[in-house]
Amino acid sequence: MSFRDYVRKVDPYVPGEQPRSSSVIKLNTNENPYPPSPEVLKAMEGVSLDSLKLYPDPDCTQLRHAIAENFGVKDDQVFVGVGTDDVLAMAFMTFFNSGKPILFPDISYAFYEVWANMLGIPYEKKPLTEEFRINAEDYAGENGGIVFPNPNAPTSILEPASFIEGILRKNRDSLVIIDEAYIDFGGESVIPLVDRYDNLLVTQTFSKSRSLAGMRIGFAIGSPELIGYMMSVRNSYNSYTMNRTALAAGVAAIQDTEYFEKTRKAVIRTRQHAVNRLRELGFTGPAPAGNFLFTAHETVPAKEIFSKLKDRGIYVRYFSKPRIDNYLRITVGTDREMEKLYEALASILQ
Amino acid sequence: MSFRDYVRKVDPYVPGEQPRSSSVIKLNTNENPYPPSPEVLKAMEGVSLDSLKLYPDPDCTQLRHAIAENFGVKDDQVFVGVGTDDVLAMAFMTFFNSGKPILFPDISYAFYEVWANMLGIPYEKKPLTEEFRINAEDYAGENGGIVFPNPNAPTSILEPASFIEGILRKNRDSLVIIDEAYIDFGGESVIPLVDRYDNLLVTQTFSKSRSLAGMRIGFAIGSPELIGYMMSVRNSYNSYTMNRTALAAGVAAIQDTEYFEKTRKAVIRTRQHAVNRLRELGFTGPAPAGNFLFTAHETVPAKEIFSKLKDRGIYVRYFSKPRIDNYLRITVGTDREMEKLYEALASILQ
Repeated sequence: MSFRDYVRKVDPYVPGEQPRSSSVIKLNTNENPYPPSPEVLKAMEGVSLDSLKLYPDPDCTQLRHAIAENFGVKDDQVFVGVGTDDVLAMAFMTFFNSGKPILFPDISYAFYEVWANMLGIPYEKKPLTEEFRINAEDYAGENGGIVFPNPNAPTSILEPASFIEGILRKNRDSLVIIDEAYIDFGGESVIPLVDRYDNLLVTQTFSKSRSLAGMRIGFAIGSPELIGYMMSVRNSYNSYTMNRTALAAGVAAIQDTEYFEKTRKAVIRTRQHAVNRLRELGFTGPAPAGNFLFTAHETVPAKEIFSKLKDRGIYVRYFSKPRIDNYLRITVGTDREMEKLYEALASILQ
Repeated sequence: MSFRDYVRKVDPYVPGEQPRSSSVIKLNTNENPYPPSPEVLKAMEGVSLDSLKLYPDPDCTQLRHAIAENFGVKDDQVFVGVGTDDVLAMAFMTFFNSGKPILFPDISYAFYEVWANMLGIPYEKKPLTEEFRINAEDYAGENGGIVFPNPNAPTSILEPASFIEGILRKNRDSLVIIDEAYIDFGGESVIPLVDRYDNLLVTQTFSKSRSLAGMRIGFAIGSPELIGYMMSVRNSYNSYTMNRTALAAGVAAIQDTEYFEKTRKAVIRTRQHAVNRLRELGFTGPAPAGNFLFTAHETVPAKEIFSKLKDRGIYVRYFSKPRIDNYLRITVGTDREMEKLYEALASILQ
């Protein structure tokens, strides 16, 4: 037997395309169309060249404190990582070791299945309803843990906090991860529930509402006990995951609440307008709560629209998967980018 | 049973202290005493605020290319990660799944054991000789893989490339990882052997000889096949591990070969001087090949010296572990920092 026979079996996640050309209108990976707060640049310029020779703070003290302050929790209730993906992967490694299947929706963030496969975690995918809603009854009974995004992706459908609380109540012995990557675009976060539910871990990201996809910052909030477990696993993996510029950028981004409010509201406004414009063009789909729309055309197949848009330099996301292969996921861009999208669609559909 | 019963059992790595005060003389975590190349600052300033809203290049194309060019290998022979720790953790996950024990020295980088424990990988620690040398005969016969640093840490002892090649020959069916974190301070890298040995993976870091501990950049070089396996596992964990500033900083650092040569030679020069000065003060220890010395005093216990140095604001590393609990690991600082160390030692030992 050679070492080749023991290579870990994986089925990697495939991210949306990252075209190099800046002339592309990029509505395919749910990035924010606005730049980060100008305070981010100042903070990063404040990181001296000389300081880079030294390891960063392994405890990420200042960033965790800034996040804790923003959400009114204690510093030891905050875990930070290299994007939500790092945070979620650590959470899977930390908590999903019971051998019992973890539960997540059949239509959801594709990485849950990838992590489960890579880590040998058994899982059951629970089908969304015909209307792409999560069925609360599916998330009860013995299980190895629960994870889903709220709003869900790629559907952009939001559930109210009361819905999440219902699931938490029925799963007091299971860890429930609510992935709030898109919550700032109109949803109610369940972070306030972490003090009442010791089985709740909430994750969020700086990649969407804080316009910092390029800096890779995600975080989790939970009880000090849960965060302590995750810190121990992280410190058994890599003591220093966050580099000095990421730590500085994160603090500045979360402290500029005015800029955050302004840009997230702009995205919401553009999204609401997009719903109407797309409807006029013959598109339907669930009411969106993220910074993206999930939409199908009444007559023209999604795949065709996807590829004709791409020919015109407009990238949206198409998933060649059961149940959703006639839908497009369209990230909300600037008003100007969206006007170009509507124009292109009108021309494609005419 | 509650979720608490299934939390992953770990025994985290304990990094050296990271004191906040800038008046401390920090000789405890093997950082470079010189700042990174000034080109790094320029490169980081070239990362626009606007670009941070977009995900970084998941393939790290430019950084991998710059590293490949530097070592005369192909781009697809290079894997990059968030420091060598990320790279090694990924390599453990990718390759050490046979259920057979992996082998590493009893006195070595402590993280090997931490990763093995966390990932449930069986292992055997092979005792170094009385002189802290690796015994090649210990690394033969059936095993689940092999990993050790060259130069070894915390001993700073270098083995020649021929020694590594002997181990590679005896282990054609096992993956052998040579962790060359400190190779640039006087050793001969075995990177040229990767084309002849498909079972060899070599890791290096930007944290030591490139003065970029604060940016978290490490890499592995091996056959395109090995690197392909690691990329798949990485893409099953986190598609975007390297943020935009780290990618830019890394390219600039590796391209400034002149600065690299200048600073690494300065460290070597100071180290050679330190060997003599410490000998005069009654210290002994193996000939150092890393940017640190491993040394014991002939009469005064290491623990006492460690703590008296700390009282004087000079941090070195002390390991309260069998066989090495009378040794100090002292990072090579600037000449000025080292003069202060010698003064403090003279005063402590008088």
